[in-house]
Amino acid sequence: MQIDLDNLASLSLGCTVFAGGGGGDPRIGELSAREAIRRVGPVPVVSIDDCGDDDLVLPCGMIGAPTVMIEKIPNGAEGRVIRETYERHFGRPVKAVMPFEMGGINGVLPVAWAAYAGLPLLDADFMGRAFPELQMLTPHLFGMSGSPAVITDERMQTMIFNTRDNIWLEKLVRNCVASLGGSACGGLYPMTAGQARRPAITGTVSTAIRMGDAIRRGGEDPIATISEVAPVTRLGQGKVVDIQRRTSGGFVRGSAIVEGLGADKGRLFRLEFQNENLVVLEDGEPLATVPDIITLLDLHTAHGIVTEGIRYGQRIEIVAFPAPPIWTTPEGLAAVGPRAFGYDFDYVSVVERHA
Amino acid sequence: MQIDLDNLASLSLGCTVFAGGGGGDPRIGELSAREAIRRVGPVPVVSIDDCGDDDLVLPCGMIGAPTVMIEKIPNGAEGRVIRETYERHFGRPVKAVMPFEMGGINGVLPVAWAAYAGLPLLDADFMGRAFPELQMLTPHLFGMSGSPAVITDERMQTMIFNTRDNIWLEKLVRNCVASLGGSACGGLYPMTAGQARRPAITGTVSTAIRMGDAIRRGGEDPIATISEVAPVTRLGQGKVVDIQRRTSGGFVRGSAIVEGLGADKGRLFRLEFQNENLVVLEDGEPLATVPDIITLLDLHTAHGIVTEGIRYGQRIEIVAFPAPPIWTTPEGLAAVGPRAFGYDFDYVSVVERHA
Repeated sequence: MQIDLDNLASLSLGCTVFAGGGGGDPRIGELSAREAIRRVGPVPVVSIDDCGDDDLVLPCGMIGAPTVMIEKIPNGAEGRVIRETYERHFGRPVKAVMPFEMGGINGVLPVAWAAYAGLPLLDADFMGRAFPELQMLTPHLFGMSGSPAVITDERMQTMIFNTRDNIWLEKLVRNCVASLGGSACGGLYPMTAGQARRPAITGTVSTAIRMGDAIRRGGEDPIATISEVAPVTRLGQGKVVDIQRRTSGGFVRGSAIVEGLGADKGRLFRLEFQNENLVVLEDGEPLATVPDIITLLDLHTAHGIVTEGIRYGQRIEIVAFPAPPIWTTPEGLAAVGPRAFGYDFDYVSVVERHA
Repeated sequence: MQIDLDNLASLSLGCTVFAGGGGGDPRIGELSAREAIRRVGPVPVVSIDDCGDDDLVLPCGMIGAPTVMIEKIPNGAEGRVIRETYERHFGRPVKAVMPFEMGGINGVLPVAWAAYAGLPLLDADFMGRAFPELQMLTPHLFGMSGSPAVITDERMQTMIFNTRDNIWLEKLVRNCVASLGGSACGGLYPMTAGQARRPAITGTVSTAIRMGDAIRRGGEDPIATISEVAPVTRLGQGKVVDIQRRTSGGFVRGSAIVEGLGADKGRLFRLEFQNENLVVLEDGEPLATVPDIITLLDLHTAHGIVTEGIRYGQRIEIVAFPAPPIWTTPEGLAAVGPRAFGYDFDYVSVVERHA
């Protein structure tokens, strides 16, 4: 498989659905990848099993508040700077690029970086969705270090972090990204393909492309079409009647109120997010929570809506997909369950809740 | 010349006087250097002219709020971590250690680092005193870059910064140091001895030792003894009657009120500081300002008092020394004159003011 100008659009649509509202608006990343493919040709997508054990892979993407990413645009060379910094550090070439999360801009920008580097893109990521913090990547669950992390910005400044643990990495990188203006590009958890095999969530790039294809196919009920690609739980449809957002400390946090429409008339949903959607509540009770993937879909097109793109008056359907299984283990829930985000309730799978 | 257990005490006393209240309390640094000299022997002090043009020198010290440095103690290995990081980066060994500022802990901690590394200490620094910010080093005036800067802490975390300019370096390193708890150790403006010759302020280590010797000699009027080593302007003596200090964003800022005693009875002095003493005012008019070196001396011992050591009731004399000449050039004043610290008046040399 390869990513060309046609399925790039599908990837962009699909990974925004799987991002759970986060990962940043894909528009800039898609334009950047489109330009890169136009210039240097399609990007091969390879399975991690096709990589040599010692091949160095480069998990990369943008870090910071999605509200900032849509205005503070990468200059296009960040991927090269990150790659060269790692190559100098490890003394050998990077062999494959990998989106560290499957979401929004972070699903497509690595395509541009792979294209310019002449490298393949791995059909895998380290979240199987998007999450806001740096210890919320699967290698963390296996005791692997996110260091050295390389941060760079559109001014071509570089910062290399070697921290004691991944919590310190999150703290130091987050504050650095905030100092840089709220978003930056980065490489994290550098490792060999051999090391990446256990933590990697595989097939996420190709699944996102299939999801995007389904959205583009549309049909009478586009959300039903989506369910052919991934099991979707429909939580309710309605209109956005209130949206609160604030950007600080390198995150965007906020909430939205959705008033039920159609069959859901009379219901009121509350969505809360930190970059990504965290919980949907009705009458104070959770309908779905992290790590399940909560996404707002445009009622008519089934396009995913990123948290910074939620607007008053949007007609949307709130859906949820089951979390990648690694996140529902005790270790996974400790890292990304509701309590990791400050909620005082436990995770119950959205499938079980709505069975 | 070499630094041994005897003149280490003089260096510590002397560089605190020249620090202008900043650079951190030398106690921890002196204990650390004492232990190092005890273990591995005295540290040779060499002139920059005795170094080869291509010899890599390591300007280093602590960065952050002096109020924090007295409690957040280095573990002793930071110098090695910084040196090894630079040696990996440049691919060759460091040949000499250099205090990046002549002040407080930063005048003596590099002695410990030089001892453990088996390297000489340069008889020079990049300030000729202490200043609070990273663009306030002489190489900045010559258009030289402070990058790559290496920051490390007592947890042995390392951060490497490559920034577009030295203002960005100050911003990013400062926020990182604040995230690390308010102080950290660092290397800045790495360069060869050949490159360091123009910006270096030379002879500052040996002058500080002579100053410390004079303080230890004391005499009837210890401050008069000091004037044999460096031209001192006596601004007034009195008692500290008020002290305000707050530590935030990696700095300590504040002010002290000194009520005149003896010949200065009836006078009231206001001292303002950001890590280092910035201005002394009387009736709203400056008596002395940066970049001249303003120091509070204990009235009886002539020991320099660091800004975090100012206490209610201390009997002190406020003195000033002329700034190293490079700081009174237009470029120097733009970087460290009163206006660089937000004051709305120009620099007038303390010698001229009190002629």
